[in-house]
Amino acid sequence: MALKLHGLPMSTCTCTVMTCLNEKGADFKLVPVDLFATENKQPSFLAKNPFGLIPVLEDEDLTLFESRAITAYVAEKFKETGHDLIRHENLKDAAMVMVWKEVESQQYHPAICPIVYQYFVAPLRGTTPDQTVIDANLEKLGKVLDVYEARLSNTKYLAGDFYTLADLHHLSYTHYFMKTPWASFINDRPHVKAWWEDISSRPAFQKVAVGMNFGEK
Amino acid sequence: MALKLHGLPMSTCTCTVMTCLNEKGADFKLVPVDLFATENKQPSFLAKNPFGLIPVLEDEDLTLFESRAITAYVAEKFKETGHDLIRHENLKDAAMVMVWKEVESQQYHPAICPIVYQYFVAPLRGTTPDQTVIDANLEKLGKVLDVYEARLSNTKYLAGDFYTLADLHHLSYTHYFMKTPWASFINDRPHVKAWWEDISSRPAFQKVAVGMNFGEK
Ligand SMILES: N[C@@H](CCC(=O)N[C@@H](CS)C(=O)NCC(=O)O)C(=O)O
Ligand SMILES: N[C@@H](CCC(=O)N[C@@H](CS)C(=O)NCC(=O)O)C(=O)O
Repeated sequence: MALKLHGLPMSTCTCTVMTCLNEKGADFKLVPVDLFATENKQPSFLAKNPFGLIPVLEDEDLTLFESRAITAYVAEKFKETGHDLIRHENLKDAAMVMVWKEVESQQYHPAICPIVYQYFVAPLRGTTPDQTVIDANLEKLGKVLDVYEARLSNTKYLAGDFYTLADLHHLSYTHYFMKTPWASFINDRPHVKAWWEDISSRPAFQKVAVGMNFGEK
Repeated sequence: MALKLHGLPMSTCTCTVMTCLNEKGADFKLVPVDLFATENKQPSFLAKNPFGLIPVLEDEDLTLFESRAITAYVAEKFKETGHDLIRHENLKDAAMVMVWKEVESQQYHPAICPIVYQYFVAPLRGTTPDQTVIDANLEKLGKVLDVYEARLSNTKYLAGDFYTLADLHHLSYTHYFMKTPWASFINDRPHVKAWWEDISSRPAFQKVAVGMNFGEK
């Protein structure tokens, strides 16, 4: 039975999971969730994810939520198929994947998420983007990207000379970020720019990127 | 050679890693880092963790940072020793560990961390705790704990009827939180309270908790 992914083509977290499934060539069906009608806060959805958030993955009797948990599961379940996203055969490589996955989660995401939210989502919700929030987070993001620039001058990808989940988890938010007036944060750092162009041109993500037009300006 | 852990006995993230090492009975040496003298921002430390944060684990030629990456590595490396923290022999169980580890990281931590920071750390840095920040995050934390209460009425631990990293990652911050005036957020929810009493009384954590007196009031 095909995997069932509850989510939306423009949702960052849904796209992360779809990109991962594509890297594995895994068959899945996207089941749209009507966020505007708060379908995600209704009992039938809350039974799948008590936090009322997309995405949710159903694999037969297993129901999973939190995008990074879903990608970890998919990467493990299909570890012998498609691109190896976790370097499961080498504990040292795998450890570096763990480290840089955490860097995305704890350092990159907390900085980039509020910028993308303020720029694209706030206007849709009828509020004006808060420039103070944007500026504070651009400063944080710049510092994180300085570390990336140094790292990527030594290794082709974040965890090493191999593309993994640590890179993949950056795709969705950075895709939207590149449509803001602050794309120079990526483009002015040559190694980050080359890395971004490389990872964003992978077919597994390109297929997903066409649907990412959420709040387009 | 024993593992080398750079950190401090009162640091939440260091304690998370020490608890995990204790669960595995792994031999390690704690190397103190003088945060007040900004030792963590000096070149020799930045070479280990470019973000200048503790903890850092050195295992021979492997240098790891980000506490949750370190615990994942330790749990994997010592998977046959001590308590199984990742359910590596059962992909369905392992998937639930992944989900609830992410819940801690993305839902619980962002709410509890600013409360603990404002209450204990802000005064040490000479600023007054910001009650607006505390209140907003108590509200978020309450909602997360409502989900936990429901979950823990069905399973003994977060990922299932087995103690894992998903539970362990809650110990350090909750330990400090229980010393704030808002411990009732845990104590008023019977299943959460029972879970907290269970996990916090494990010897692997008790050994660490004696050193956790950071900003004691
Ligand atoms: N940490 C979660 C975040 C999920 C999330 O924030 N999803 C958004 C869409 S990208 C959502 O469901 N928003 C609906 C809402 O907040 O009501 C993950 O990585 O899956
Ligand atoms: N996400 C990191 C956070 C590490 C962190 O914030 N460490 C604190 C101590 S608990 C630190 O090094 N603070 C020193 C500083 O900010 O200069 C982890 O989980 O390891």
